[in-house]
Amino acid sequence: MSQKINVGLVGVGRMGLVYAEDLAYRVPQANLVAASDINPAIEASAKALGVAKWYPAYQDLIDDKSVDAVVIITPTSSHRDIIIAAAKAGKAIFCEKPLSISLEEARQIQQVIDSTGVFFHMGFMRRFDRGYRAAKEKIEQGEIGTPVLFKASSRDPFRPSLEYMDPRHSGGIMIDMGIHDIDLARWMMGEVASVYTVGGVLAYPEVNEVGDIDNAVTTLTFESGMLGVIDVSRSGVYGYDIRAEILGTKGTLKVGYLRETPVTVLNKEGVTHDTVPYFMERFERAYIDQLQNFIENFSTGKPPSITCADGVADLEVAYAATISYKEKRPIGITKP
Amino acid sequence: MSQKINVGLVGVGRMGLVYAEDLAYRVPQANLVAASDINPAIEASAKALGVAKWYPAYQDLIDDKSVDAVVIITPTSSHRDIIIAAAKAGKAIFCEKPLSISLEEARQIQQVIDSTGVFFHMGFMRRFDRGYRAAKEKIEQGEIGTPVLFKASSRDPFRPSLEYMDPRHSGGIMIDMGIHDIDLARWMMGEVASVYTVGGVLAYPEVNEVGDIDNAVTTLTFESGMLGVIDVSRSGVYGYDIRAEILGTKGTLKVGYLRETPVTVLNKEGVTHDTVPYFMERFERAYIDQLQNFIENFSTGKPPSITCADGVADLEVAYAATISYKEKRPIGITKP
Amino acid sequence: MSQKINVGLVGVGRMGLVYAEDLAYRVPQANLVAASDINPAIEASAKALGVAKWYPAYQDLIDDKSVDAVVIITPTSSHRDIIIAAAKAGKAIFCEKPLSISLEEARQIQQVIDSTGVFFHMGFMRRFDRGYRAAKEKIEQGEIGTPVLFKASSRDPFRPSLEYMDPRHSGGIMIDMGIHDIDLARWMMGEVASVYTVGGVLAYPEVNEVGDIDNAVTTLTFESGMLGVIDVSRSGVYGYDIRAEILGTKGTLKVGYLRETPVTVLNKEGVTHDTVPYFMERFERAYIDQLQNFIENFSTGKPPSITCADGVADLEVAYAATISYKEKRPIGITKP
Amino acid sequence: MSQKINVGLVGVGRMGLVYAEDLAYRVPQANLVAASDINPAIEASAKALGVAKWYPAYQDLIDDKSVDAVVIITPTSSHRDIIIAAAKAGKAIFCEKPLSISLEEARQIQQVIDSTGVFFHMGFMRRFDRGYRAAKEKIEQGEIGTPVLFKASSRDPFRPSLEYMDPRHSGGIMIDMGIHDIDLARWMMGEVASVYTVGGVLAYPEVNEVGDIDNAVTTLTFESGMLGVIDVSRSGVYGYDIRAEILGTKGTLKVGYLRETPVTVLNKEGVTHDTVPYFMERFERAYIDQLQNFIENFSTGKPPSITCADGVADLEVAYAATISYKEKRPIGITKP
Repeated sequence: MSQKINVGLVGVGRMGLVYAEDLAYRVPQANLVAASDINPAIEASAKALGVAKWYPAYQDLIDDKSVDAVVIITPTSSHRDIIIAAAKAGKAIFCEKPLSISLEEARQIQQVIDSTGVFFHMGFMRRFDRGYRAAKEKIEQGEIGTPVLFKASSRDPFRPSLEYMDPRHSGGIMIDMGIHDIDLARWMMGEVASVYTVGGVLAYPEVNEVGDIDNAVTTLTFESGMLGVIDVSRSGVYGYDIRAEILGTKGTLKVGYLRETPVTVLNKEGVTHDTVPYFMERFERAYIDQLQNFIENFSTGKPPSITCADGVADLEVAYAATISYKEKRPIGITKP
Repeated sequence: MSQKINVGLVGVGRMGLVYAEDLAYRVPQANLVAASDINPAIEASAKALGVAKWYPAYQDLIDDKSVDAVVIITPTSSHRDIIIAAAKAGKAIFCEKPLSISLEEARQIQQVIDSTGVFFHMGFMRRFDRGYRAAKEKIEQGEIGTPVLFKASSRDPFRPSLEYMDPRHSGGIMIDMGIHDIDLARWMMGEVASVYTVGGVLAYPEVNEVGDIDNAVTTLTFESGMLGVIDVSRSGVYGYDIRAEILGTKGTLKVGYLRETPVTVLNKEGVTHDTVPYFMERFERAYIDQLQNFIENFSTGKPPSITCADGVADLEVAYAATISYKEKRPIGITKP
Repeated sequence: MSQKINVGLVGVGRMGLVYAEDLAYRVPQANLVAASDINPAIEASAKALGVAKWYPAYQDLIDDKSVDAVVIITPTSSHRDIIIAAAKAGKAIFCEKPLSISLEEARQIQQVIDSTGVFFHMGFMRRFDRGYRAAKEKIEQGEIGTPVLFKASSRDPFRPSLEYMDPRHSGGIMIDMGIHDIDLARWMMGEVASVYTVGGVLAYPEVNEVGDIDNAVTTLTFESGMLGVIDVSRSGVYGYDIRAEILGTKGTLKVGYLRETPVTVLNKEGVTHDTVPYFMERFERAYIDQLQNFIENFSTGKPPSITCADGVADLEVAYAATISYKEKRPIGITKP
Repeated sequence: MSQKINVGLVGVGRMGLVYAEDLAYRVPQANLVAASDINPAIEASAKALGVAKWYPAYQDLIDDKSVDAVVIITPTSSHRDIIIAAAKAGKAIFCEKPLSISLEEARQIQQVIDSTGVFFHMGFMRRFDRGYRAAKEKIEQGEIGTPVLFKASSRDPFRPSLEYMDPRHSGGIMIDMGIHDIDLARWMMGEVASVYTVGGVLAYPEVNEVGDIDNAVTTLTFESGMLGVIDVSRSGVYGYDIRAEILGTKGTLKVGYLRETPVTVLNKEGVTHDTVPYFMERFERAYIDQLQNFIENFSTGKPPSITCADGVADLEVAYAATISYKEKRPIGITKP
């Protein structure tokens, strides 16, 4: 690759700052040249990372001719407007999951991406984790025969704020959290035909206030006839526990681990090791590898590794899983 | 305990022989005094174990006044008649799972057990496995707070014969196999309110011939509102993989292992250990401990550890899980 | 095998009782017909196991014509006299380790065994553990190439009584405890050329009173030039930790485990499982399999799996390891 | 910290390039301003990392007034001259292990460091690995009581070149490789009183050509009376296996792992996961954390975490371990 890509970052909150540091220090082919956030207090942090240009309004960043690619790490509700503006300006786009919490909006975004033909990478960092990547490769190499069952668990070590959980912003647990597992499921097993979800407010009664649930189990049938099951929990108080298993006709693959430090203590209470505290400890490298892939594929003319259509399809399943819980019945995935 | 219990064994097939050896050698308080099987060829094996009396017809064994307790390891379809005959003769009864494949029959059995008041132990050996027992104790001691989610997997290392799988005899995968997990679920989480099953003939096309399926996933909601999920497979070709996990508000418990021999090989291909081949390697001791508990509770006047009502309730759930798969909808558990 | 072997057990203390139960219940080809112990209080226990004849004096048991084989589980200091008496009476002999704590006595025993030609099995149960057996087989099959380094650890979960540890009876930590690892080392790697031991009273100051040490590390060089290292400890307070590792030119094998119950607890303190409490939990089955092998090889005319010469050679190494510690120098193993 | 530290790197070979990248990208408080190597071909790589000044001769880098700290990653034989020059110029110094292969040279270096009073950090990255650090903290917090036994293994996945192994340059296996474990041993257990080594050319006959050995076991006694044992191997063909264990009076700690990717494959051959390929995969972060600590301690006026005296003491033990092997006797560690 002969040239670096100039990147503008829109949204420099908690996650945005992680992306900013990765772009500034850990993705050699990226130049983080500009950043934008509605919170003016963040400008100083951005400048400390060597970001030359600070735009209070994202449109100004998009209008900056020196910016080749826009990385969008804003609240989900703002994704549509920023994506469409960036697409119309012909920028390459990276957008953190979920694409939207509204199916209608998501499909609208896809239309614009399709019609403008800009490079669009839908952010799902797990696909770049070495464990999941190795599993995907082994499946493709036939190591487990035909995949029959996809299982995944996602557990947060504590409850997010009620404000964060509010389904009006988060879309609810399946769209906010389960969508990671749904994306993996589609990646490894193909398209989903129907879903059924059970769940409830089982660990934190106060979650009732905002109308979301804190634990859920979703079964999936794939178009191939194969099976899937995902359990998500906001009450994995023992650590950040992210696992998957793919059972095939010749064997099974397990992905995941629960150990932060390679030290084990053996005493009269038993044999003990620590757990993974939270998502940055687990997926730090996957975030970097994903950005690297975004920059590399864009700059070398390859298609994006995760497309806008993936973002829409993942949302369709997560949305159906949410409806299923409310209506207490299996829901078929219908394409528009 | 001052006196040994005289046991008569009805059914000395593959599993019956295991029970015979356990009763003859490994349960000190039991005297295996009599055995019965419709297959006369087995008499010699029974005699080799020191069984004094051989009855071609089970009724004669039941009529034997010296027999205190009857252990029934016959094909499921014969359970009702043998249990009722033994109950009417006032014998203590141990019956291997499942109680029946017919809900009607199961309830009829329970009526006889209730009206005769005989001691009846429903055989589910997993409840006597040291892992599941320790998990149950830890739950009761509050180690994981309130249980929120019960997960279990059961995988056979190979497909049973089609004759064995035929739902007319086996009741289908949920009644034959999933009932073990259902029993554990009820034991640890309480009664089940509803179930939903997805599944299919996914690994062995020939299973279509007999009308059963080879893989299934069942979600459960408990009367408490809590959640469960069970996946069963006839195609766990890598080993006999029996696991459970109980997620609570303060932690999670995992039960199960996949290692037969304590030797690990490390070479250029990686780090490898063996798996558990099949159920006797995994549950050998649980079978013995269960028989011991049956004999001990009966002889000391304690109630049975697993009741006829458990057998009926387990069947109700397994039956609903089967219907759910066929009708593609969640099924509520209705009590008669 | 057409006929059962009539066994007489000499020594029915703590370990003797384990052997008694195994012989009575778990070794089908053995008839435990007689027992002997200087403690008359034990007669009742023996009778409860169905042992027909009780001899206060071992010589009477040996003189009993109906006894085919003598199993000796007495204190080490009495081994010589009992073995010689049994050998002269032409009995098959099983003797628990160590053969003796005196090299002179051990060689005297071997002379008698050699001259009488009786079947003699030296008891080292670890060779019958499934883990060590599998490791041995894998080595023989060439799975790790040429073995280069043998490592072993033996740790007791608590200090034995000072009376037990007294080197006048136990021979000291290397003869009492390290001899198990030495026997494995010789079995897997061949004869030992020299040893060097460091150690001390490091955990229990009171051990100084009896003149033994509580922790030691012994390096070994084998006649082949290959290497070994054994660490033994009386202060493995976290559990009974018995491990070995054999590094070869193509890979390495690890044997051992530290888990009693297949349940794992995950909570805010981390991921925890239990440990193996003590030797019966770890080697219960190995003891049975060893007895079975003794009876089977004797009754079918095969040579013993562990010979008197093994017992002598193990003692030579353990003795040299003890001297090495005292004289603070490497000691070559000299054959008489 | 108000100001960045300007760093000059001497030696930009294979390891030097790793240090260059860490200093350029991953240690925020360091400015990599200059580099030097006798190989002119490397200048381009250095420039690509943004290093402004390239000095073919290290003395010129040392004479550069803008350089605050010198990081020395040259062949061991050149350490003395470069360190002394840098010390006389008043630079802070980081030197990769081993300090020297000559005790005399090492002591000479220490004299210069002591007399000039410059900040000197002896590079032993394992002390900054999260596992070893956690173990050290737990020991200091008393979690395992009094440490009694230190065990460590170091295994390379393949043989280095014979040229590299030549003891005239490497000092031999104990000085080149075992010194890492010796440094950990001293860090955790205190000073060493005596050592004894056995070893040989056991895996690669061609190693005889250069006069080194490929496998060794060294026992240590510490001044406290406690015990240690280290085994090192050039033939750990299954992976880069670096482990330690510290047994104390209240428990034991194990450090290390052998897994690169969090994916496990279960098939008919068993349960398999990969291993750690080599040292960068294992200690990538420890190298960065060590450099960070060097820069931070220097810039905040704290003493170095690992001193020149550590480098000398580690060498004294490694040297004695080498002599012990040659002279086949235990060697006491004598201070000059």
